[in-house]
Amino acid sequence: MRLAELGEFGFIEKIARLVGAPQAPVVVGIGDDAAVLKLTGDGYLLLTTDVLVEDVHFRRQWLSPEQIGTRAAGMALSDIAAMGGRPIAAFVSVGLPPTLEVEPAEELMAGLSRTATQYGAVLAGGDTTASSQGIFVDVVILGTTHQPWLRNGAQPGDILMVTGSLGEAGAALALLQAGQVTDASALPEALAKRFANPTPRLAVAEALAARNMVKAAIDISDGLVQDAGHLSQRSGVSITIESARVPISPICRQTAQQLAQDPVQWALTSGEEYELLLAISPEMAEQASQVVTANGEIALTEIGYVTEGERVVVLDESGKPMDVTLGGWDHFGQDPLCGGES
Amino acid sequence: MRLAELGEFGFIEKIARLVGAPQAPVVVGIGDDAAVLKLTGDGYLLLTTDVLVEDVHFRRQWLSPEQIGTRAAGMALSDIAAMGGRPIAAFVSVGLPPTLEVEPAEELMAGLSRTATQYGAVLAGGDTTASSQGIFVDVVILGTTHQPWLRNGAQPGDILMVTGSLGEAGAALALLQAGQVTDASALPEALAKRFANPTPRLAVAEALAARNMVKAAIDISDGLVQDAGHLSQRSGVSITIESARVPISPICRQTAQQLAQDPVQWALTSGEEYELLLAISPEMAEQASQVVTANGEIALTEIGYVTEGERVVVLDESGKPMDVTLGGWDHFGQDPLCGGES
Repeated sequence: MRLAELGEFGFIEKIARLVGAPQAPVVVGIGDDAAVLKLTGDGYLLLTTDVLVEDVHFRRQWLSPEQIGTRAAGMALSDIAAMGGRPIAAFVSVGLPPTLEVEPAEELMAGLSRTATQYGAVLAGGDTTASSQGIFVDVVILGTTHQPWLRNGAQPGDILMVTGSLGEAGAALALLQAGQVTDASALPEALAKRFANPTPRLAVAEALAARNMVKAAIDISDGLVQDAGHLSQRSGVSITIESARVPISPICRQTAQQLAQDPVQWALTSGEEYELLLAISPEMAEQASQVVTANGEIALTEIGYVTEGERVVVLDESGKPMDVTLGGWDHFGQDPLCGGES
Repeated sequence: MRLAELGEFGFIEKIARLVGAPQAPVVVGIGDDAAVLKLTGDGYLLLTTDVLVEDVHFRRQWLSPEQIGTRAAGMALSDIAAMGGRPIAAFVSVGLPPTLEVEPAEELMAGLSRTATQYGAVLAGGDTTASSQGIFVDVVILGTTHQPWLRNGAQPGDILMVTGSLGEAGAALALLQAGQVTDASALPEALAKRFANPTPRLAVAEALAARNMVKAAIDISDGLVQDAGHLSQRSGVSITIESARVPISPICRQTAQQLAQDPVQWALTSGEEYELLLAISPEMAEQASQVVTANGEIALTEIGYVTEGERVVVLDESGKPMDVTLGGWDHFGQDPLCGGES
């Protein structure tokens, strides 16, 4: 069997079995947004690594070198937000074609360093190497937390909430793939921001972590339904998503109309959105929502609930279960960036 | 200017300038074998990342998938040894062609996990992705130490010492490049071990660190003279290497004779040897040597000394300065694996 048939998640499961249960000082190993270690002193150490590969995760025509760096940092920082953590340092391994000009290579590193520093993670090391083909960037973020948010803490009765709005990454990708715009900078502002410079929800994480309000969390990098599936599987619960409640921005709806696409489908399945999906006790939901709103420009919206079972159900606007064609991200299988080729 | 002209070290310098001085909790950032962080609690946290790229650092004809994993883990662990540290956890980001069979992919991960675990670093996370071309492996090792060995601690009057022997990695590569053997497993045993499964000198590091005997250290990954150059530059001292004292194993000499090559040249310049180069006070030298010998099968040998200045001098057997053609590793410039192409 080839990796393309097994798929990314199947392969990760094989690795997890091979490695076995975590041993001290590792508390949580493979299978969450970041690893959790318990060293001496207070709290926990978090570590996440995130790879971006040219023509798998990005195209050089669509993103400037600086945007590649910015995006790579943002996606890795988002994993620390998903653990309720605070970033403290960044490291980057880059593979670059030796024929690449020095200037774009520096711009990539500058975008990465600036974004990481902006969120408190100063660039502290890494590795540089020639790549025989395209660019790849592997970002490591080290973080800390007093109490990590895991994927396995959701319980029946919990409310499912999401930060910000969903579907903009899908809208941006659709415009680029349709050739309606030539690169990220030509996208409508909100879509350009989401695609090239996504905001890791670290401020939200900090505000909610301080109040101990979150029972389980994941960031939406594979697509809402797929990431809800990860929560469901790890927590051993069923999750119901009420699609009509999923927040979708005006520009996302407008883009969908322009391309005759369904914005709800984007919101349910598009990856790389980098919002947080949270399981919260119902009695905490309103307070959590207020904390997030008070904290900045985005909202925290209730979009579903947790029940007994082990599956994800998506309800349409009339409350009937609907079929969702899982796009999402499987890096060995389908590849949404390259239009399904593998 | 292209990266190939600037070279790996020129590019790293540019990144270091861009990032600026380390800020808490980072104590040592870009430019040593690993980054050093001071968190709460005793001691320091170490973090290193090391990338292996197919056809830059290895060829799939020469190494089995398991050996690729083993070698990747060994080279990253060696950086922790070079800091006088103890590994506590490993993380790996891999890029794999989707057309690759699952079995070799698993073998690669198994080799990596087994090697890391053997030295105390359980595999705790990472990322997996499709690669549009060959395999790449980025290994992150987290370690701890009570007092990090830095590159900048060498002082005039210090003795320069090296663990084990040098040149075997050069001998292995020469046999493979000459087509004398078809893959690493067909190499003489000691060369196969060095090439496919190098021993990170963690036991030596632990023994010497406990006795506070080392003033500066680096592992030999770029080549002895080049790595001595890194020590020299960071410490602001001159280093003299007495080439006749550099330990060379019988199998290395025998291979050199077979290929009509100079084993001293290999010992001085070949990368990926993964021995430790240490600056030690002269009054400590004998005791350090005894500690290492008592600890295992390898020796610690005096090969030179530190003086005022800022350069590296290599003396031939008659004590005259000699010219050394710097092979070594510059991952953007020359590429010893691919015979100098870039």
